[in-house]
Amino acid sequence: MNIAVAQSGGPTCAINASLAGVYLQALKSEKIDKIFGSLNGIEGIIKQNLINLSDYLKNEEDISLLVHTPSTVLGSCRYKIPEGADDIYEKILECFRKYDIGIFFYIGGNDSMDTVMKLSEYFRKNSIDIKVIGVPKTIDNDLCGTDHSPGFGSAAKYVNATVQEIARDSRVYSAKSVTIIEIMGRHAGWLTASSCCLRANGEIAPHFIYLPEIPFNVDKFIKDVKELQKINKAVIVAVSEGVKLEGGSFAGEQYQSGKTDAFGHQYLSGIGKYLENVVSDTIGCKVRSIELNVMQRCSSHIASKTDLDESVEIGKSAVKSALNGYTGCMMCYIRDSSEPYSIHIESIPVSQTANNEKYFPMEWINSEGNNVSDDAIPYFLPLIQGEVEQKMKNGMPVHFVI
Amino acid sequence: MNIAVAQSGGPTCAINASLAGVYLQALKSEKIDKIFGSLNGIEGIIKQNLINLSDYLKNEEDISLLVHTPSTVLGSCRYKIPEGADDIYEKILECFRKYDIGIFFYIGGNDSMDTVMKLSEYFRKNSIDIKVIGVPKTIDNDLCGTDHSPGFGSAAKYVNATVQEIARDSRVYSAKSVTIIEIMGRHAGWLTASSCCLRANGEIAPHFIYLPEIPFNVDKFIKDVKELQKINKAVIVAVSEGVKLEGGSFAGEQYQSGKTDAFGHQYLSGIGKYLENVVSDTIGCKVRSIELNVMQRCSSHIASKTDLDESVEIGKSAVKSALNGYTGCMMCYIRDSSEPYSIHIESIPVSQTANNEKYFPMEWINSEGNNVSDDAIPYFLPLIQGEVEQKMKNGMPVHFVI
Repeated sequence: MNIAVAQSGGPTCAINASLAGVYLQALKSEKIDKIFGSLNGIEGIIKQNLINLSDYLKNEEDISLLVHTPSTVLGSCRYKIPEGADDIYEKILECFRKYDIGIFFYIGGNDSMDTVMKLSEYFRKNSIDIKVIGVPKTIDNDLCGTDHSPGFGSAAKYVNATVQEIARDSRVYSAKSVTIIEIMGRHAGWLTASSCCLRANGEIAPHFIYLPEIPFNVDKFIKDVKELQKINKAVIVAVSEGVKLEGGSFAGEQYQSGKTDAFGHQYLSGIGKYLENVVSDTIGCKVRSIELNVMQRCSSHIASKTDLDESVEIGKSAVKSALNGYTGCMMCYIRDSSEPYSIHIESIPVSQTANNEKYFPMEWINSEGNNVSDDAIPYFLPLIQGEVEQKMKNGMPVHFVI
Repeated sequence: MNIAVAQSGGPTCAINASLAGVYLQALKSEKIDKIFGSLNGIEGIIKQNLINLSDYLKNEEDISLLVHTPSTVLGSCRYKIPEGADDIYEKILECFRKYDIGIFFYIGGNDSMDTVMKLSEYFRKNSIDIKVIGVPKTIDNDLCGTDHSPGFGSAAKYVNATVQEIARDSRVYSAKSVTIIEIMGRHAGWLTASSCCLRANGEIAPHFIYLPEIPFNVDKFIKDVKELQKINKAVIVAVSEGVKLEGGSFAGEQYQSGKTDAFGHQYLSGIGKYLENVVSDTIGCKVRSIELNVMQRCSSHIASKTDLDESVEIGKSAVKSALNGYTGCMMCYIRDSSEPYSIHIESIPVSQTANNEKYFPMEWINSEGNNVSDDAIPYFLPLIQGEVEQKMKNGMPVHFVI
């Protein structure tokens, strides 16, 4: 029996670590012969665009480089299997038959788990013994069933280091200023909220944290900033890209392109620029908006060691689960304790997680709706622990490339 | 005799390293008693807002943290001494007399060197024995007289690591795309050009590099991108914020705020967004613009060790020069060799550098004006070498704060 593994959705720093985990555990199994990588997610299966990973991952150094390489070395896709598309299932089956694939591992986010669910149901319904296992990843941390998602810890570590550095940068002048940091998160504010970790080191920035879970009131925002500027001249604001105005429209809607991706998600950007203009027009002080953009999901040079280690482990666990007969599952982190931090890995039926979103808990948002309470810190802090040792050449990180 | 030191202009990762150098060398001198730090640059002198640095820098760990802290721990300013403002000179002199300041060190960029020049001339003209020494810093690398500027190497290291990570991120999908990375540089393209270092590691991105030194032709840009997309689906473009359209206006002018700083510089931003819209309208493929924003000047977690080490040394050399009787000088790096890399530090009359700008050499720009030639690599590469060990606490960098 051979296996196939693919990566899907938006890049993270840990998605290749999970691939390495799958590969390492599969190598150990006598039941598994070849380990194929599908290029560009499920599209690579449909198009029979597979590579034998052993041709590329030849030694321990290759594996180590893979773990520390951001994004998806196998490429990604945003392909959704249409309802009732029997021909697609048949193409996938044809590929799996041709390559003698007994297990398919799909490393991805919410939309990828939809594929895991549909595919495993199709195989089950047709009594085909091919197992399908989902390995989670998302910097949004919005997958249900898992305590946190692979890739989130590294993004949160980047956010905290960078917000702190921006805080240093924003405080140099004696004049009043507002610095607005726009952080990824369509509907769930986890990544933006994680910036509260800086408090554990005595840093009070960001002074305000705005999440998509709470409707945004522009007047209250301006009032809050003005009030704080009486005692703190350089105000630093962290805001989720998906923050919505009271009433329901995206706050930065006037800056939207209006375009949507294959899943109908609107491309978001612009809340930072929107608030910059609002501050400029109403307060008139120095103001700057900063979009952390793709750097927050690909800055592997400051990845969280905890995140990468766990991401390797969850990949390994996926192989163990499949060999134990599981299918239609997503692997999950279950937190046993925050202090001291301890997790274990289990699998849950993917139907419990696909097409759902896990929002940031309301009880961790302060009553004014403009910050995160200290209760959230013990949740986030373990996830950003540990520094990785990245191989450098000529002063630059070395990545693994297929 | 006491001394005073101040920091001015835009933040960098190395400006505190130079402060540490001044402090360390001054501690060693029997001629120097107290070492004062002026808060918010020359403004702190005018307002007699000085602190005794020994009250804050108490041990080796404090010094090490200072070296690895971005931005300016003493604060900064963008104050320009007006022409014929005798009262300002008198206030500065009053402060220096009160604090028995015999040497004033000003760590800053082009505009700060203007202050060094004016102040030293004033003291010379009035036979006042107070020495004024400039210590350069700028991520723009546009200071004349010095081979490169403290702070530049760290910014260039960040740019290279980040452009490489963005390259990984941008290549995941099978569809055609253009990724536009906007990099700081008003009039000089050094920092944007430095991204050519990636070639030393076999990375071909960025595929196009646009600098302010060459007028930008939008039609040629689109033609170049379309041509490259025939063989390379994910095109990555590095562009200086200050790129000007053929004809002279800033390419991103329609996105400008129109506001200017105290020196009459227009606040720039928007070339990336401008080109994103151009690509979207003409090519219609997936396109994203990314502004490296203040992260390129404050990401001390990926500072260049070479840069920080040299920045400490140039601070030390400034003290030595002043004690040797020099005034009205800026300290400079003189490169002896690129392979192997070797520099020494000298001082030059500040009049040779103040109010001048050093542009990126035309002979290192390709004939098409859309890239940098390989000849530039040996210049840049030594400056980004070496990784710093930053103290971490709770998974986040620790900074020195006054």
